Amino acid sequence: MIIHAKKAPGYEPSAEFVERKGKGHPDTICDGVSEKLSVSLSRYYLEKTGRILHHNVDKAILVGGQSRAWFGGGEVLEPIYIMLVGRATGRIDRDELVPIGRLAVEAAKSYIRENFRYLDPDSHIIVDYRIKQGSVDLVKNFEAGNDIPLANDTSFGVGFYPYTETEQLVLEVEKYLNSEKGKREFPETGEDVKVMAVRNEDKIRLTIAVAMISKLIKNEKEYAEIKKRLTERLYEIASGITKKKVELVINGADKPEKGIYYLTVTGTSAESGDDGQVGRGNRANGLITPFRPMSLEATAGKNPVSHTGKLYSILAMDIARKLVEENRHIKSANVYMLSQIGAPITEPQAVYVEASTDLSQEALSSYAESVAKEQLQEAPKLWRRIIEGRVSLY
Amino acid sequence: MIIHAKKAPGYEPSAEFVERKGKGHPDTICDGVSEKLSVSLSRYYLEKTGRILHHNVDKAILVGGQSRAWFGGGEVLEPIYIMLVGRATGRIDRDELVPIGRLAVEAAKSYIRENFRYLDPDSHIIVDYRIKQGSVDLVKNFEAGNDIPLANDTSFGVGFYPYTETEQLVLEVEKYLNSEKGKREFPETGEDVKVMAVRNEDKIRLTIAVAMISKLIKNEKEYAEIKKRLTERLYEIASGITKKKVELVINGADKPEKGIYYLTVTGTSAESGDDGQVGRGNRANGLITPFRPMSLEATAGKNPVSHTGKLYSILAMDIARKLVEENRHIKSANVYMLSQIGAPITEPQAVYVEASTDLSQEALSSYAESVAKEQLQEAPKLWRRIIEGRVSLY
Amino acid sequence: MIIHAKKAPGYEPSAEFVERKGKGHPDTICDGVSEKLSVSLSRYYLEKTGRILHHNVDKAILVGGQSRAWFGGGEVLEPIYIMLVGRATGRIDRDELVPIGRLAVEAAKSYIRENFRYLDPDSHIIVDYRIKQGSVDLVKNFEAGNDIPLANDTSFGVGFYPYTETEQLVLEVEKYLNSEKGKREFPETGEDVKVMAVRNEDKIRLTIAVAMISKLIKNEKEYAEIKKRLTERLYEIASGITKKKVELVINGADKPEKGIYYLTVTGTSAESGDDGQVGRGNRANGLITPFRPMSLEATAGKNPVSHTGKLYSILAMDIARKLVEENRHIKSANVYMLSQIGAPITEPQAVYVEASTDLSQEALSSYAESVAKEQLQEAPKLWRRIIEGRVSLY
Amino acid sequence: MIIHAKKAPGYEPSAEFVERKGKGHPDTICDGVSEKLSVSLSRYYLEKTGRILHHNVDKAILVGGQSRAWFGGGEVLEPIYIMLVGRATGRIDRDELVPIGRLAVEAAKSYIRENFRYLDPDSHIIVDYRIKQGSVDLVKNFEAGNDIPLANDTSFGVGFYPYTETEQLVLEVEKYLNSEKGKREFPETGEDVKVMAVRNEDKIRLTIAVAMISKLIKNEKEYAEIKKRLTERLYEIASGITKKKVELVINGADKPEKGIYYLTVTGTSAESGDDGQVGRGNRANGLITPFRPMSLEATAGKNPVSHTGKLYSILAMDIARKLVEENRHIKSANVYMLSQIGAPITEPQAVYVEASTDLSQEALSSYAESVAKEQLQEAPKLWRRIIEGRVSLY
Repeated sequence: MIIHAKKAPGYEPSAEFVERKGKGHPDTICDGVSEKLSVSLSRYYLEKTGRILHHNVDKAILVGGQSRAWFGGGEVLEPIYIMLVGRATGRIDRDELVPIGRLAVEAAKSYIRENFRYLDPDSHIIVDYRIKQGSVDLVKNFEAGNDIPLANDTSFGVGFYPYTETEQLVLEVEKYLNSEKGKREFPETGEDVKVMAVRNEDKIRLTIAVAMISKLIKNEKEYAEIKKRLTERLYEIASGITKKKVELVINGADKPEKGIYYLTVTGTSAESGDDGQVGRGNRANGLITPFRPMSLEATAGKNPVSHTGKLYSILAMDIARKLVEENRHIKSANVYMLSQIGAPITEPQAVYVEASTDLSQEALSSYAESVAKEQLQEAPKLWRRIIEGRVSLY
Repeated sequence: MIIHAKKAPGYEPSAEFVERKGKGHPDTICDGVSEKLSVSLSRYYLEKTGRILHHNVDKAILVGGQSRAWFGGGEVLEPIYIMLVGRATGRIDRDELVPIGRLAVEAAKSYIRENFRYLDPDSHIIVDYRIKQGSVDLVKNFEAGNDIPLANDTSFGVGFYPYTETEQLVLEVEKYLNSEKGKREFPETGEDVKVMAVRNEDKIRLTIAVAMISKLIKNEKEYAEIKKRLTERLYEIASGITKKKVELVINGADKPEKGIYYLTVTGTSAESGDDGQVGRGNRANGLITPFRPMSLEATAGKNPVSHTGKLYSILAMDIARKLVEENRHIKSANVYMLSQIGAPITEPQAVYVEASTDLSQEALSSYAESVAKEQLQEAPKLWRRIIEGRVSLY
Repeated sequence: MIIHAKKAPGYEPSAEFVERKGKGHPDTICDGVSEKLSVSLSRYYLEKTGRILHHNVDKAILVGGQSRAWFGGGEVLEPIYIMLVGRATGRIDRDELVPIGRLAVEAAKSYIRENFRYLDPDSHIIVDYRIKQGSVDLVKNFEAGNDIPLANDTSFGVGFYPYTETEQLVLEVEKYLNSEKGKREFPETGEDVKVMAVRNEDKIRLTIAVAMISKLIKNEKEYAEIKKRLTERLYEIASGITKKKVELVINGADKPEKGIYYLTVTGTSAESGDDGQVGRGNRANGLITPFRPMSLEATAGKNPVSHTGKLYSILAMDIARKLVEENRHIKSANVYMLSQIGAPITEPQAVYVEASTDLSQEALSSYAESVAKEQLQEAPKLWRRIIEGRVSLY
Repeated sequence: MIIHAKKAPGYEPSAEFVERKGKGHPDTICDGVSEKLSVSLSRYYLEKTGRILHHNVDKAILVGGQSRAWFGGGEVLEPIYIMLVGRATGRIDRDELVPIGRLAVEAAKSYIRENFRYLDPDSHIIVDYRIKQGSVDLVKNFEAGNDIPLANDTSFGVGFYPYTETEQLVLEVEKYLNSEKGKREFPETGEDVKVMAVRNEDKIRLTIAVAMISKLIKNEKEYAEIKKRLTERLYEIASGITKKKVELVINGADKPEKGIYYLTVTGTSAESGDDGQVGRGNRANGLITPFRPMSLEATAGKNPVSHTGKLYSILAMDIARKLVEENRHIKSANVYMLSQIGAPITEPQAVYVEASTDLSQEALSSYAESVAKEQLQEAPKLWRRIIEGRVSLY
């Protein structure tokens, strides 16, 4: 295991691009249902056998439906179709089969039920699955409280800390819009929110696309008023996060003169043609940041015990945060991790740290190594936080 | 149009085979959801345009799920998968699309909800569809209250009357078992009931397969008691219908010594591997009767306005019934009808009547012709009875 | 086991309806691919284990495609979709899996390849399947050359003999049209042929729908000429079968004045919206005959060892034929058989024979019993004829 | 439009992670079939209308099959299932439908046929699709040779140049293995090749997973020999690219002592459980590089006329390359681009350049701007290179 740290300049680019796809976006729905299924399988295996058996359900596709929305109403014409794909241990022992199919259907529907107000899991969604059964013998690399699981692939994990103001802004805006408070203040906003920020020096341009609920808005005038009020509210939120000049555009593709508005029946663009997949949206930190190190690993749906594509994405974030939060000499850090297939998950091939610090190279190296090692000891317990929903993954 | 009647001996075979698949049987479920969708489309078209537009959704397939049932409990492991197939007018006018997909999903789920107590449309069933859109131009052969629709195919319809005691027995036993009263007296019986009768001269052997609800039955003993009570109850019902000697077997494939019982979680064998299709079960009169004239036309899912495979199945039964019920000289009748594609549905290619009667051939011919012609005038109004659910079709 | 024979009047109705769906009809395609898969599974099991393991793949659905045909050309816009459904033993022993999926895909494609000239299995068809795995333990009721298999269901089989002239006519016309000779003489005719006959006393009206291959026909004139030549040829064939007056209509729905012709790119109406299912077309004797006894059992796709719905359909035809062909005192016969679930297939619940004969009732009974018993001894060997393709089933 | 350039240190990290998924990897297959379909649609639209109509088919899912491979042979048990998803203009004018479905099936099969030797598109693959139809009115933003198309989304494009030795090494190794020469020298290697490099200072560890063709390898010994020969060959290639110390591992998960080898029947792990999606693998430059700027935009399947997620990924690479290749003062460059939905594709929201150069900041800015503007003029012609296959996209 190589643990390697290096001093690097801080992250202070003159420009930034940052994006977040909210929980109602078609890609995020795919992440959500896949992860929900993984949690559901994990709990089932735990309850039946005391350990989490092998599964990897990190693929799904969503085929957008068809709908017609108008001020004051609307209807879904063709349901959204979701197919969950992957593999999972299908048998506890010779006689006891795992209800993979039923769990898949329930996971998808409960994700919808818990995250949407106007998307009906019963009539607006078709949930299908093609999940192959793996064997119980396949993965014996985890016994609860016993051994260290072995990495089931050679995968990257990447993390950085802290977030820039632009990044915080993007995160907070979506968070607010999909919070209880946000929905109370703006019930007309749907769950499909996409926030994009471009910063050029001191100016941030925030572009927000938010699917509006057609039946809650009487007419063009009301729509315009809601947009106006929402704009004001978001400026307020922005001003609490940054002093930079923020320019804010909501539903910029609206063309009132042509009667074009971003109206939906259900609160998501998936109702009308936008398709989705797992792992095509937010990274584990909730953001898409082309200026920053990123991994292409999808975290959603992977088993939380041995899949280092998932675990190292979390650990790399944790290490970066810890380095910065617990040592005032470190201003920022990027962490890169690479697993070794077949080796204990506590023993990656390599951990690289880039840190902006006034520590000496030696002091950094030694400190980074100790933090990394300490965090790696957490790896075998990470599954608990994951299945309890205490880690955000997308 | 040829209307032809012929004197024939009465139907008094020394033997009979008669079968009925109850409303929870996989084939009947397919019939039910297809017909429900046709009704739902018909109502939608009527409401939007004042007439029923072209559709033909008379195909569906059900892929049985997987489940595990035990005395006192059970679980569905893999949901049942249903795919509805056919075509339907997809556009009311240039801009208004018909919600075919949503109606399909809703039709299937509401059939399940209305006909089952323990089959959950949300987590035990996947409803998919592949329904192609037809054009509004395609079929202009029906304007409500105006013209006579034109037959959209060359199809047979067949009917006979009256039912034998064996036939009545089969019908009544299923009816009772799936009635409110039946479910009150025997809540443990599921909706998937298959009744089969073999009569040899004066002896009727009645074989009944009824999916039992596992969680309502504590153990083998209780199961045996319910079977015993049910047997007694059905003998009672049988004795009200026939004086013939009835031998009654319930769930004859049970093998208590091997722990084999007909237990289900949901009340249908579809939960565990039995597949189904439209039109593979009961004929329009509710029965399968190899000794009797039968048509192979599926009635379920066909449009109720111009599809003579549906309409003539009903009309042939109506004519046979009328001939016998309204004329005491006619003891029994078989009626065969054949449509002429492209001709008004009131003008079939041929209507053949075989009647057991003491009327002269001439009198029979003339009477049969008048009854047939009179009933044919009802054809253009038949859709009302159909979409109001006042005609039994399978 | 009851074997019961009864004298009955001969089958001489004044009217008849007879239909046959040719090998390219959507329903027949479903029959064809299901049966092909059953044969393919049977051979695989035999080769690997020396016996035919349990399977029942008697469900399939075909969703018609979309195409555009014009004189001299045409193109398929959307492929035909076929889904095969059922269950089959998935494991030879602990380690050896049966390639059910690959066999399903290959069976469907080879049916297409062997039966069509212009339907491309590679780009005109999507073959999907949802076949559940059964266990090897499930059915141990057959050891090649050893025991008598046990009936796996309570099913009817029905047969009659001989065919009327109308029935022969329908069979022969389709046979000719889909024969090598027919295709040599009329290459422009597709494989989707539907023949329907209505006889009223001495007049037979023969309605033939035959999908024409668009690219082989230059224009309206050539189409008309081919229809004319074909009509003449079929009159010739008809005159060799019956002396009755035959009226013959080919593609009666053509409307030259509106430019409507029955043109297809591939030779089947499935290319353009006609859907299909297993068991909705021809009975085991190749015909649909509402005036005659029929069973609703699909024969295609059922296992040839223990599924009496398949076996008894064949046996009932065999018995009827034998009764008539080997005894000049018997003019015609109907045979009805009913299996007993769990009993050896050589021991049905009941065999009923209705025969038109000048034999005494006693002689008939005794003779019928001996023929039936003899034929029943063939039941355990029937699978050979079936998997060698020597029995026609639909 | 902001064009902004900034001097930055060169890219000289002490560590690197680089990965490439070869053309036979499940994710790459998804990229390949989606892009093939986009090209196929583009050509169809061009031929029929002179312009490329709207489409976006950038989603697909691959469900791995099941197979059994052994030295000297093997068989596919369950085919691979691929579903293509997206939307495309379905109608050229009122009467002329676009054969989307057939093109989808053909695209997938021809990708397989052109890129694999042992994967049979006919029996090893099921190709399905759920592509919704868009309207011709939707996108009128492109007339060949006329106007500038309008960006159909707000998307990122990211590029960098030049490649490091590690990056070149990864690219070249896969290229060789899947070249004609590579297959001639090592026919036993399949098309599913995954190359991963970790560099730490001067040491590169190259991990290569290559699916071997089971039937071409007689036994363990031959397998070992091939691996040995291949290792030598790849060291040779590596030494032509870098002077750094290379350590090379082929199929590191093999465990000869347990009989575990990376054997496949078809040359791809998709045959046996590995699933795939579009956009989860290589970026437009053919690599996955977590230390480098990356976009999450999938390029495959997007329309080549107005989808800036595709176009800007190519342009950003082109600009970076041009900056470096045409100006010896610039050693390396990163380029970031962001489109403006609804604006001409030649007018992005922002272009950011980071360059390592000895030019002054002003000189860099002015030069970068001129190069960027020049390249942007190419944007409206990019579609030609794309549909002629002259741009590598994944």
